[in-house]
Amino acid sequence: MNDQAVRIGRDTLGEVRIPANALYGPQTQRAVENFPISGLRLQRAFIRAQGLIKASAAYANMVTGQLDEQKARAIIQAAEEVIDGMWDHQFVVDAFQAGAGTSQNMNANEVIANRATQLLGGQIDQGLVHPNDHVNMAQSTNDTIHVAINIAGAELVHHVLLPVLDRTVQVLWSKAEQFMPIIKAGRTHLQDAVPIRMGQEFSGYAQTLASAAERIRQSSARLYEIGLGGNAVGTGINAHPEYAERAIQEIARRTGLPFVPPRNRFAFMQNTSAALEVHAAVKELAVHVIKLTSDLRLLSSGPRTGLAEVQLPAVQPGSSIMPGKVNPVILEMSYMVAAQVIGNDATITLAGCGSQLEINVMMPVIAYNLLQSLLIMSSMLDVLREKCLVGLEANEAQCAKWMAASLSLVTALNPLIGYDKAAALAKQAFSEDKTLEQVIREAGLWTAEIEQALRPERMV
Amino acid sequence: MNDQAVRIGRDTLGEVRIPANALYGPQTQRAVENFPISGLRLQRAFIRAQGLIKASAAYANMVTGQLDEQKARAIIQAAEEVIDGMWDHQFVVDAFQAGAGTSQNMNANEVIANRATQLLGGQIDQGLVHPNDHVNMAQSTNDTIHVAINIAGAELVHHVLLPVLDRTVQVLWSKAEQFMPIIKAGRTHLQDAVPIRMGQEFSGYAQTLASAAERIRQSSARLYEIGLGGNAVGTGINAHPEYAERAIQEIARRTGLPFVPPRNRFAFMQNTSAALEVHAAVKELAVHVIKLTSDLRLLSSGPRTGLAEVQLPAVQPGSSIMPGKVNPVILEMSYMVAAQVIGNDATITLAGCGSQLEINVMMPVIAYNLLQSLLIMSSMLDVLREKCLVGLEANEAQCAKWMAASLSLVTALNPLIGYDKAAALAKQAFSEDKTLEQVIREAGLWTAEIEQALRPERMV
Amino acid sequence: MNDQAVRIGRDTLGEVRIPANALYGPQTQRAVENFPISGLRLQRAFIRAQGLIKASAAYANMVTGQLDEQKARAIIQAAEEVIDGMWDHQFVVDAFQAGAGTSQNMNANEVIANRATQLLGGQIDQGLVHPNDHVNMAQSTNDTIHVAINIAGAELVHHVLLPVLDRTVQVLWSKAEQFMPIIKAGRTHLQDAVPIRMGQEFSGYAQTLASAAERIRQSSARLYEIGLGGNAVGTGINAHPEYAERAIQEIARRTGLPFVPPRNRFAFMQNTSAALEVHAAVKELAVHVIKLTSDLRLLSSGPRTGLAEVQLPAVQPGSSIMPGKVNPVILEMSYMVAAQVIGNDATITLAGCGSQLEINVMMPVIAYNLLQSLLIMSSMLDVLREKCLVGLEANEAQCAKWMAASLSLVTALNPLIGYDKAAALAKQAFSEDKTLEQVIREAGLWTAEIEQALRPERMV
Amino acid sequence: MNDQAVRIGRDTLGEVRIPANALYGPQTQRAVENFPISGLRLQRAFIRAQGLIKASAAYANMVTGQLDEQKARAIIQAAEEVIDGMWDHQFVVDAFQAGAGTSQNMNANEVIANRATQLLGGQIDQGLVHPNDHVNMAQSTNDTIHVAINIAGAELVHHVLLPVLDRTVQVLWSKAEQFMPIIKAGRTHLQDAVPIRMGQEFSGYAQTLASAAERIRQSSARLYEIGLGGNAVGTGINAHPEYAERAIQEIARRTGLPFVPPRNRFAFMQNTSAALEVHAAVKELAVHVIKLTSDLRLLSSGPRTGLAEVQLPAVQPGSSIMPGKVNPVILEMSYMVAAQVIGNDATITLAGCGSQLEINVMMPVIAYNLLQSLLIMSSMLDVLREKCLVGLEANEAQCAKWMAASLSLVTALNPLIGYDKAAALAKQAFSEDKTLEQVIREAGLWTAEIEQALRPERMV
Repeated sequence: MNDQAVRIGRDTLGEVRIPANALYGPQTQRAVENFPISGLRLQRAFIRAQGLIKASAAYANMVTGQLDEQKARAIIQAAEEVIDGMWDHQFVVDAFQAGAGTSQNMNANEVIANRATQLLGGQIDQGLVHPNDHVNMAQSTNDTIHVAINIAGAELVHHVLLPVLDRTVQVLWSKAEQFMPIIKAGRTHLQDAVPIRMGQEFSGYAQTLASAAERIRQSSARLYEIGLGGNAVGTGINAHPEYAERAIQEIARRTGLPFVPPRNRFAFMQNTSAALEVHAAVKELAVHVIKLTSDLRLLSSGPRTGLAEVQLPAVQPGSSIMPGKVNPVILEMSYMVAAQVIGNDATITLAGCGSQLEINVMMPVIAYNLLQSLLIMSSMLDVLREKCLVGLEANEAQCAKWMAASLSLVTALNPLIGYDKAAALAKQAFSEDKTLEQVIREAGLWTAEIEQALRPERMV
Repeated sequence: MNDQAVRIGRDTLGEVRIPANALYGPQTQRAVENFPISGLRLQRAFIRAQGLIKASAAYANMVTGQLDEQKARAIIQAAEEVIDGMWDHQFVVDAFQAGAGTSQNMNANEVIANRATQLLGGQIDQGLVHPNDHVNMAQSTNDTIHVAINIAGAELVHHVLLPVLDRTVQVLWSKAEQFMPIIKAGRTHLQDAVPIRMGQEFSGYAQTLASAAERIRQSSARLYEIGLGGNAVGTGINAHPEYAERAIQEIARRTGLPFVPPRNRFAFMQNTSAALEVHAAVKELAVHVIKLTSDLRLLSSGPRTGLAEVQLPAVQPGSSIMPGKVNPVILEMSYMVAAQVIGNDATITLAGCGSQLEINVMMPVIAYNLLQSLLIMSSMLDVLREKCLVGLEANEAQCAKWMAASLSLVTALNPLIGYDKAAALAKQAFSEDKTLEQVIREAGLWTAEIEQALRPERMV
Repeated sequence: MNDQAVRIGRDTLGEVRIPANALYGPQTQRAVENFPISGLRLQRAFIRAQGLIKASAAYANMVTGQLDEQKARAIIQAAEEVIDGMWDHQFVVDAFQAGAGTSQNMNANEVIANRATQLLGGQIDQGLVHPNDHVNMAQSTNDTIHVAINIAGAELVHHVLLPVLDRTVQVLWSKAEQFMPIIKAGRTHLQDAVPIRMGQEFSGYAQTLASAAERIRQSSARLYEIGLGGNAVGTGINAHPEYAERAIQEIARRTGLPFVPPRNRFAFMQNTSAALEVHAAVKELAVHVIKLTSDLRLLSSGPRTGLAEVQLPAVQPGSSIMPGKVNPVILEMSYMVAAQVIGNDATITLAGCGSQLEINVMMPVIAYNLLQSLLIMSSMLDVLREKCLVGLEANEAQCAKWMAASLSLVTALNPLIGYDKAAALAKQAFSEDKTLEQVIREAGLWTAEIEQALRPERMV
Repeated sequence: MNDQAVRIGRDTLGEVRIPANALYGPQTQRAVENFPISGLRLQRAFIRAQGLIKASAAYANMVTGQLDEQKARAIIQAAEEVIDGMWDHQFVVDAFQAGAGTSQNMNANEVIANRATQLLGGQIDQGLVHPNDHVNMAQSTNDTIHVAINIAGAELVHHVLLPVLDRTVQVLWSKAEQFMPIIKAGRTHLQDAVPIRMGQEFSGYAQTLASAAERIRQSSARLYEIGLGGNAVGTGINAHPEYAERAIQEIARRTGLPFVPPRNRFAFMQNTSAALEVHAAVKELAVHVIKLTSDLRLLSSGPRTGLAEVQLPAVQPGSSIMPGKVNPVILEMSYMVAAQVIGNDATITLAGCGSQLEINVMMPVIAYNLLQSLLIMSSMLDVLREKCLVGLEANEAQCAKWMAASLSLVTALNPLIGYDKAAALAKQAFSEDKTLEQVIREAGLWTAEIEQALRPERMV
């Protein structure tokens, strides 16, 4: 920064040089200098949630007579600009920052205070609206950052992840229907097992993800409890008695989501339980994504040296060295996203353990990881659906070939000839490289009943 | 084993030497020899669940006419002995065993077959009841082991963990009530913060655990979906059409828990979702246990060189070298249990990722870890409640001492004199080692209004 | 316990009822009552290490003139009985116990004191040797438990895990040699890739485990730093100046392992770094076990519906329902052990984070998990080697079949005809279901040079 | 994109619209469209490593006569521009991308091919240099991406992390020296323990981090094994026999780091062991950072209601609501970074488990997490050192106050009056709120010897 480009700000610790046109002020600038850690920022959804809180708090302070209307309306307008994303580039604090997110909260306070001052006809730093006394009125970092996590999480779950997940489930159900006529060799322990319809297999995938969605929906309900007005430790010090209810109602109105006060504000301040719970549900979804995509990589293995029961749409050339090969890149990317989410869960769990007494100061890292998981899971599921599942086709001929070769049909003979004899025939067929029919005929056991029993379509 | 003590068994792979009086047979014996890994066994709750399944399956096979009544009644009686724990010492397979738990299932089949044979007047190995053809009728390892996980998990959650957890929560609520008159210095970032009632702090602990209980209760509901009758891959091959429903009803009747068929049997066979979900909820409880017990260790730190706001009941001499010191051993043990549970979650998550195609063969390690977590969390919570929380007392004098020393009361001046001036006074008091009152008086700012504002009881 | 069976013991907290014949005393008994958590105990290797410490400490106290020779010799003899496992049944404290392992240390002190008293002709509780004043002389729980972890860990690594791992590696090298003539289709992304020798593939497995062994060996070297004589906080209070060196030398002499004092005793007391480091190395081995055994399950998939390139020795009947099927049970068990170890690493990591100021009281859970991981990894590797790898055979015919089908040979044409043309030919062959030779001939490109280039044996 | 701004590219799958001026080509563009996942990119250090590989490969291909000199020199020059960071904005593929990093490799190939074409006087897409035939000559994604991980990891470890860590350790040693005169109350289990010098405590911190550095240095040595020239599966197909050695020597020359061929190329291709090992060592450092920074937060707790034994430099106003309070923000940020690193380890571990047969396609997520951990650990340690440790001061008066209050000095009486009597005196002092001296005098036990023994400076 050269001298022309900066202005001098002041906080309780002294002077700070700030980019002249920045809406943020000294505390944000200090945070920028104190935390040059990752280059990562808290996500758009989080900044939006901060805007929602600031607008709603100003509204509540206004209607309870704590904040004069002119200032309040300026704050609300500035906050709405933050909600709409107009000032994202003014949120400059690293995701790894001050405990509890003090810097993040002050970033919002300073941006909105200066912007509101501008809206009132003033200049940056003129202080017509004060970041602490007005924008942060009746709030503390401890409650607003936690509440912002819940709002951002709830919005992403309900407006992004669940719709995408539901669409993915729908495609799996339609594939299940499409593949229902195809009878294939089941495999357990990766070994020949009794027949199954490919449609049944895919119905399992669909139901698994549908149940995961249900779980996420259920767990996310707890995000609606937001302890705004708890202030620093949960006692609501310095807030008007009606402030919390009014502010929370306003947040509910603006988001269309049913936010309510928590059953116990002290519990809310002490922990970020809802974030942990939602992330655990997303982690379970990640486990199922790993299973689904690993299965599909296995079923699409080949084209010549693998199972090749399904064929994936090609989305890019597969290998920089091997022409003609098309790799399951979308599935692999999905696995990596899921691995990231599972690692994020470890981070969030450890951060959750870091709570001490009245608050958990590890909120910024919880926020970053929760929102990242929600975002990359959503993007991934969308790509998975559109670029892989929709165009996925069964290779019926290959399924039939495997089915014919499998010895597993022998299972159907258990009720007819008993487990021990059936086992012996299967072993013989395998060691002599014959079909089951051959060895059963050679043993003089072939009957119409057995012929019936061995038909795969009777087993599925 | 010397020759007198053994008998010779046979399975499809050949001869096996088995302890002469063992109720189990050759497949169990092979597993004992194949898996000398940990010396750990699947838990009592799991064996009980296996007994419940075998009894209920025999009942369902009997009423659907697949199994003759005499054999069925013998199996049911033998299985009831397993349910009651009479044959636990005959379940000898290591927890780390064959994928899917084949050995565990065969252990149950062999014990019950031989015991039922005895009940019918026969000898061990006489085979009046056959382990596969009769005891395992209409079942497969794949469905019974998974179902056993769910039954054992549901019984432990509902009959052990939740009652214990509820009692612990009750004690915390009563402590919250008891400590409500005590005003103490709040601490955020481990720094002086505005006042809080100790009762409010404890109400936060109570509500946090109460919410965790709610979450566990909710997630455990999914354990009730049990895909019995799915057989190897979910198609229900070799089972009578009414078998699954009859068997599941019988399990529900015997346990008093509302078990039902799964919405999709293929999904059930592919994954152990309910176990993952329940364990994730227990993991979250573990996070809260770490927070609670770490807080209590901090609040009880001392007796002379720490915060010393609460006093723990002494349950053992504290140090092998330092007389007079009483360590927070119950709290430390609780942290260690929680750490184990969080690690178990990593194991279960990874095992969940190991599902391939029609089943997840990693079920034994999931079973062992889930049940261990439920058991040690329960025991720990019981000990924590009885030996630590019930007898925990507040040190009121110490709380008052800290409260008087804290500078945090200055926060209450924000609305009166503004943030910046309040901050300056607090800094002055700190640097000159004076009380707030002193510096405010020296600044000529002392008023009745300020005196009122600074009273801690107005802030909580 | 009825009255006949008990005696009354006393400690600083009062009276305790103890089984009459137990060698342990009141503090152990309290711990039994305080910690009815898991039914698990710290492992034999740990108790042995405690015996080694007590014997060596008594020796050092004797030669430095702090402990009279008669008492010292009795303690040493009693401790040697502990070393040899004679009193394992007298170590009755749960693995989840008092922080730092105070109860575990007192269990050893009390058993040895009473046993030494017996050896001197006295009765239990007669106190000819005192558990604190004599057996625990110059020690504290804080240093002895940590040192016991290191000794037990080092003995298991060097006498159990590494020898077993080395034998496993040897078998893999011999398989690599045996399979070197077999050329097979390589697979990357589970897709057809250029040829590879099966022996090359197995040499990769061998080297990977060999490197993991090297890593474990290297990391375990740090277990040799043992801060005996640090006492409670590292200052060595109450110990003779030569005590630490003498005791550590004696431990080195008795174990044959090069134990030395730590570079900094305070660092030693604050953390259990060496345990963390060794476990991290074992965790990495677990990752490689998962890769190896997953590969082998894939390569042995079939017998009819999978890759079937290798054949595993059958160790038990494979399925309770499907006759003739032999499951990869040893490989699956290995995966589960690895999953447990990876979860244990999460537990140990979290416990490691629990260190506060002068010591980490989470040592018991670290001990339990570290030793469990070492033990189950060792047992598993031994079983894996003996029951799976040694008897594993290649299915050459199947390898040749896949090789012939693969389109990957086209890669060899890149230098001759360019990437783009090669890719086009491969795509054509695939879409028209022809061999490469066919399409190349049809394109009029077949030459002797190309024929040479396409021979798989030239590519490996 | 409007029509003016795009050009049409082609790959084996068809046409693609590419920004007209982009140096990258169709495969990169496809990846951009296929993977709109996180907005994150592989880090600068990774792109630099790709440039190093491409330059060195071109050099090796040139000197072995496989690539004509003009093309080679153009590639080298273009790659050097990549090394220097000139084209970072042309690396546009998401970190969550195609398995193995095919897209990332093609991004480098296309950028360098077009840039080299420009350097030879041609236009973008004119193809004077071909991305596959020339830039990627003798390489495959499978080997180059893995090698890039190792190079980037080694450079960050040796040029960034270790120097920063060493400086941090130096500051801790100097603090240890500075604080050596200060005697304070030791605390174990957060309870009063025997005295310790603050300098001893800090020497423990210093040594712990020094050992962690040693471990990282040691483990990172294995990053030097780079399997360049392994090609797709490790067989080195399509590469000149001298290529690998020449290329690796060139990388060593350019980086000044001792890169060598791996002991076994197949092992190298199958796993990313070195990355796992280094990250495990960084994870252990993270555990120690959590311990250190948690301790410092505890020791600096207050200013009035905590231990307050050390004072942190203030770097920002501490609370948005509570004036005068300065929070330990740098320490909290450090904890969050460590929590992220521990979570990243879970991701890397799971990704490591995802290896199948000839390669591990999960390399991109391993790369991203490894490099992120190295970078944020480095930045954090630098900030921690500069903004917290350097200016950290002891509060001697407070230390003396706690020391005087502690009962732990009684430990020193064990050798003089025995454990039981010492314990009784301590209990009496505590219950009667007296000093030790008082109760000892009252008991008539006070002697010069005891007076000597009770002096703290004799215990440290």
